[in-house]
Amino acid sequence: MKVQVGVSNRHIHLTKEAYKILCGDKEIEALRPLNQPGMFASTDTFTIKTEKSEIPNVRVLGPFREYNQVEISRTDAYKLGVNPPIRTSGDLKGSEAITIVGPKGELHLDEGLIIADRHIHLTPEMKKIYGFEGKTKVKVFIGGEKSGIIFNVDLKVSDEAYFEMHLDTDDANAFNLKQGDIVDIIED
Amino acid sequence: MKVQVGVSNRHIHLTKEAYKILCGDKEIEALRPLNQPGMFASTDTFTIKTEKSEIPNVRVLGPFREYNQVEISRTDAYKLGVNPPIRTSGDLKGSEAITIVGPKGELHLDEGLIIADRHIHLTPEMKKIYGFEGKTKVKVFIGGEKSGIIFNVDLKVSDEAYFEMHLDTDDANAFNLKQGDIVDIIED
Repeated sequence: MKVQVGVSNRHIHLTKEAYKILCGDKEIEALRPLNQPGMFASTDTFTIKTEKSEIPNVRVLGPFREYNQVEISRTDAYKLGVNPPIRTSGDLKGSEAITIVGPKGELHLDEGLIIADRHIHLTPEMKKIYGFEGKTKVKVFIGGEKSGIIFNVDLKVSDEAYFEMHLDTDDANAFNLKQGDIVDIIED
Repeated sequence: MKVQVGVSNRHIHLTKEAYKILCGDKEIEALRPLNQPGMFASTDTFTIKTEKSEIPNVRVLGPFREYNQVEISRTDAYKLGVNPPIRTSGDLKGSEAITIVGPKGELHLDEGLIIADRHIHLTPEMKKIYGFEGKTKVKVFIGGEKSGIIFNVDLKVSDEAYFEMHLDTDDANAFNLKQGDIVDIIED
């Protein structure tokens, strides 16, 4: 089973209330749509910071969510001097603290900083048709000069989903993968 | 077969002549020894730069070599706006250009910038005893939350070698590996 790769650079998800703290009364604007239906990269980029360091120009994705979440790579985590857990979106209990700096204000989150797990977006129907029923994780083979197999790739089922594997920049760069590359799901 | 992981951050190898261009008549000094016999991290860190960008504080390793070589990760390559090939040390024909900035001078290399391949250092005797005779590559299993298997890990044989797998920071961070972690060679 072939699946397309989406490379997730560090990014921010916000509630409407958090966006207001950071940006004031401005409306969020889409810069470009993402492959996942309804999602978009916004025109906003903010700085994220810890006591040790900061990273500027971190893209805010839309639409708004029920929670505030910042997703970074392990490489970013070393730069920021923090040790975020590897988590699926929204599973934020006990995750790392982070401060977001917007043009109109700052927002300190006691938790919300994670390294996203490797995951594949698909619909319940795709899960059935593709033979993944009863499975929550798969393995994926990646070819090329820096080939290998990654385990623990989470099957992330939602009614509105574009079939795509999301990796962070560490995974993508380790395997020399770019946005849109095609890889093989090999087994559960 | 268990093997220890050595994580290679970006670094520079120089000839004696190149070092003199960059540092003048100063002798190279060891900051700390590396696991590979005779090798050391020097007290020198230089900036590497391209037309697009630069990265400061890149460590020089010693002793001097017969060639000048800068090893970076794919993450670094994106920052610098270059596309270095994945190579074993010393295989520099057609590799990327890079400029090294030292305290006394700059050195432009028309080639010498690479992404190091995944490799394991071992002696001819270890290669025989461990059952790797006739093989040039192995696969390595890495456990943990971000587990998987990496292929094309080069067996790098030299008379003076400490048994250790060298990965760059992209590979290490993708698999959550740290210096000194133990992983499993699983097959050729």
